[in-house]
Amino acid sequence: MAAAMLLPALVDLAEDNEDWRVFALSSFLIGAVGALVGAASRGEPMRFNARLGFLLVTTVWVVTVLAGALPLYFSSAGLSIAGAVFESTSGLTTTGASVISSLDLLPPGLLLWRSLLNWIGGIGIVVMAIMILPQLRIGGLALFQMEGSDKADKVLPRARQLAAGLAAAYGALTVLCAATYAALGMSVFDAVNHAMATISTGGFSTHDASLGYFHDDRILVAATLFMILGALPFVIYVRAFTGSRSQRRRDPQIAVFLVLCLVLSLALAVSRRLIEGVPFGEALITSSFGLVSLLSTTGFVSDDYTRWSEAAVGLFFIALFLGGCAGSTAGGIKANRLVVLYKLVDASFRRLVRPHAVIRLRYGESEIQPQAVQAVTIFFFLYFGVLLIGTVVLGVLGLDLLTAFSGTLTSLSNVGPGFGPVIGPAGDFSSLTDAQLWVLTAIMLLGRLEIVTVVILFLPSIWMR
Amino acid sequence: MAAAMLLPALVDLAEDNEDWRVFALSSFLIGAVGALVGAASRGEPMRFNARLGFLLVTTVWVVTVLAGALPLYFSSAGLSIAGAVFESTSGLTTTGASVISSLDLLPPGLLLWRSLLNWIGGIGIVVMAIMILPQLRIGGLALFQMEGSDKADKVLPRARQLAAGLAAAYGALTVLCAATYAALGMSVFDAVNHAMATISTGGFSTHDASLGYFHDDRILVAATLFMILGALPFVIYVRAFTGSRSQRRRDPQIAVFLVLCLVLSLALAVSRRLIEGVPFGEALITSSFGLVSLLSTTGFVSDDYTRWSEAAVGLFFIALFLGGCAGSTAGGIKANRLVVLYKLVDASFRRLVRPHAVIRLRYGESEIQPQAVQAVTIFFFLYFGVLLIGTVVLGVLGLDLLTAFSGTLTSLSNVGPGFGPVIGPAGDFSSLTDAQLWVLTAIMLLGRLEIVTVVILFLPSIWMR
Repeated sequence: MAAAMLLPALVDLAEDNEDWRVFALSSFLIGAVGALVGAASRGEPMRFNARLGFLLVTTVWVVTVLAGALPLYFSSAGLSIAGAVFESTSGLTTTGASVISSLDLLPPGLLLWRSLLNWIGGIGIVVMAIMILPQLRIGGLALFQMEGSDKADKVLPRARQLAAGLAAAYGALTVLCAATYAALGMSVFDAVNHAMATISTGGFSTHDASLGYFHDDRILVAATLFMILGALPFVIYVRAFTGSRSQRRRDPQIAVFLVLCLVLSLALAVSRRLIEGVPFGEALITSSFGLVSLLSTTGFVSDDYTRWSEAAVGLFFIALFLGGCAGSTAGGIKANRLVVLYKLVDASFRRLVRPHAVIRLRYGESEIQPQAVQAVTIFFFLYFGVLLIGTVVLGVLGLDLLTAFSGTLTSLSNVGPGFGPVIGPAGDFSSLTDAQLWVLTAIMLLGRLEIVTVVILFLPSIWMR
Repeated sequence: MAAAMLLPALVDLAEDNEDWRVFALSSFLIGAVGALVGAASRGEPMRFNARLGFLLVTTVWVVTVLAGALPLYFSSAGLSIAGAVFESTSGLTTTGASVISSLDLLPPGLLLWRSLLNWIGGIGIVVMAIMILPQLRIGGLALFQMEGSDKADKVLPRARQLAAGLAAAYGALTVLCAATYAALGMSVFDAVNHAMATISTGGFSTHDASLGYFHDDRILVAATLFMILGALPFVIYVRAFTGSRSQRRRDPQIAVFLVLCLVLSLALAVSRRLIEGVPFGEALITSSFGLVSLLSTTGFVSDDYTRWSEAAVGLFFIALFLGGCAGSTAGGIKANRLVVLYKLVDASFRRLVRPHAVIRLRYGESEIQPQAVQAVTIFFFLYFGVLLIGTVVLGVLGLDLLTAFSGTLTSLSNVGPGFGPVIGPAGDFSSLTDAQLWVLTAIMLLGRLEIVTVVILFLPSIWMR
């Protein structure tokens, strides 16, 4: 984080903006504290158990969020502490909701820092989802780990090598995306910022109108494609280069996610054609961009799509739940869980009619173990539990039902825009009170850490012998 | 149904209202068809299996709904076919949503018929939930049946005796409720109608202002108590009179439901006192009435509570999900499922920290079997699946998000009022199109039949050898 802050410092220095001092000082401060903590904790690595694992993951995220908020708070953007922490959390969790309502007037350093938060958060999530959470038996990818650790399907033999592979894929996709944006007419600054926000499925933009600023359908199409790439499991990119043929297992969630993108986009395009009379070509581009933006949990906007039609609003509404693939930068319920849910419901129906049939649940080529079923079930309960409790708490704090519910939903799924006049695609979170922002900040972190990781820390029974 | 229709026919005849012919003719028609079907199907009882069980339950409900709609369609209320079927379904499923916006002007026969639909539906649900659905391994009470059929905890030795006991308890509660209402100043007609709508947790009223018409806090308190009684498992009333001590098992869902009523009512009352400055006594009466009305899925209204505060709206919103007890006339997710969900999540957390611990799930004094866990899980998935799909479909049919979502929710939980200006507590369903009403009619039936019972009929694999 300290190193990353030097980039906006340099950009602001080059543009002669005073904020360069804020970034440089924040970088120094965080670097110094980090170095001291590092020095203080040298020596024998401590022995880990599951409890400390959950505590560590949550603590690392909270500390990183606070570090990211530091330059935002002291910068010329004039944010409150709650606003700065919200913006930093929104960036690092790749949510993309913003409390800043005049992006076009911000100095370039701040804009770059927001995009960097998205970008750092994105790779952090991929590495966490693929390498750490499965060890704690959390998250979608735990499905694979639970198949029995002896014959575990290790993607690459060593963890460092895998992490390097993931980072390389992430970097390569970002460069490719930035080059595409630049080739389509964006300035280099805009192209780099939007590429970081696209591949991380974060959705921070350098303009209030988001991608609508460019008025260019080709940019929307390119963004649609790169958002899809960001929402696919990153392991497939590593495998494409390094894996042997035997390691290339078919992952059914990819097909489910792509079919969802296709079917929902087509349905929306048809509704735009029939209800609004939009030419089908334009309807298809804007529909697929809008839906993929929400399904991939990016949250880019081309237009106030809540004014298209009530049919469009309904389709966008379910997209906010579904999410992308596990092992990607996307949030939401995620396609691998949808696969398991479908198999569960299907098996259950068949058992009702044939009570004695032996029904095995399969995910791709492997059998779904009872622990994996339980993990998916519990996630689902907690997801809807947080959704309801978050709505009530935000209601108590004064938000109307539509804003409270869609705000909780878009934060929990790490998407960005909600519904209604306040936090809809045409609005932002700047009019919310500090208390409301703190609640949404907590919900974004809950969503990003697959809920369980955080909730478990608050159960007294976990800490008792 | 044919016999029940004679009551409104007599009332309308006494009041010299032409609608008596409609009820008499409908009664004759339905009675004749019923008698013919009965005569045609005499003989050896056919052999049943699970598939035919699901088909029979659903068919009986659909046919009864259509029979109930017959006099509504031909009456002076001027309803469309969709409106009449919606109103009949809303009555029999004890939802209580209405397409009639001027109840105070309706002839008494029609008002009585609506209340009778609630009342017939209520006892139908209790008998179905306690005696039929467990045989199909559906619904909350299946939990008990799954404990192993050998030592099954039969409430009364024979089914006929149990059904008679349930009906007697239902009738006695209704009489008690009507007497209380009359003693508190309602006319006998209003008292009888509202008593039928209270004990059935249906919520149809004879006035547009619902119970708010009477401007009497004592009536609200009485209604609150009787709605709670209607939302408790009816088996406890039968057991109280006939069961031996050993049969009186503790049912944990009762405590959960009562605690929910208490805690949410208190929270709402405090919010009314602090946010709106309402005197605490009045706040407590209106808050407990409003919340119990939604938690018991009755849907009576004293006031447009969506204008109280955003905190109130939030609390009412979660009440729409939770519901009453299994084995009662209430709908929603239901308290026994909430108990199982809590135990599941708790056990799952403990397993994450202590992977090798043996954790048994207990419901009261009995162990929760894996099939029961699965039934609860599947219900939960389907509940939220229907909620999302219903919202999208109603969006496609032109309803705004708040109306579409809360309309689906209130129909699926069989409550009655939704949120927003259209179908909120101050509105009704009369402005909805026929297509929208058909969708909501289907959702009310889905909710009443615990979703699974209906959905299973549409799976091709169920009908294949």
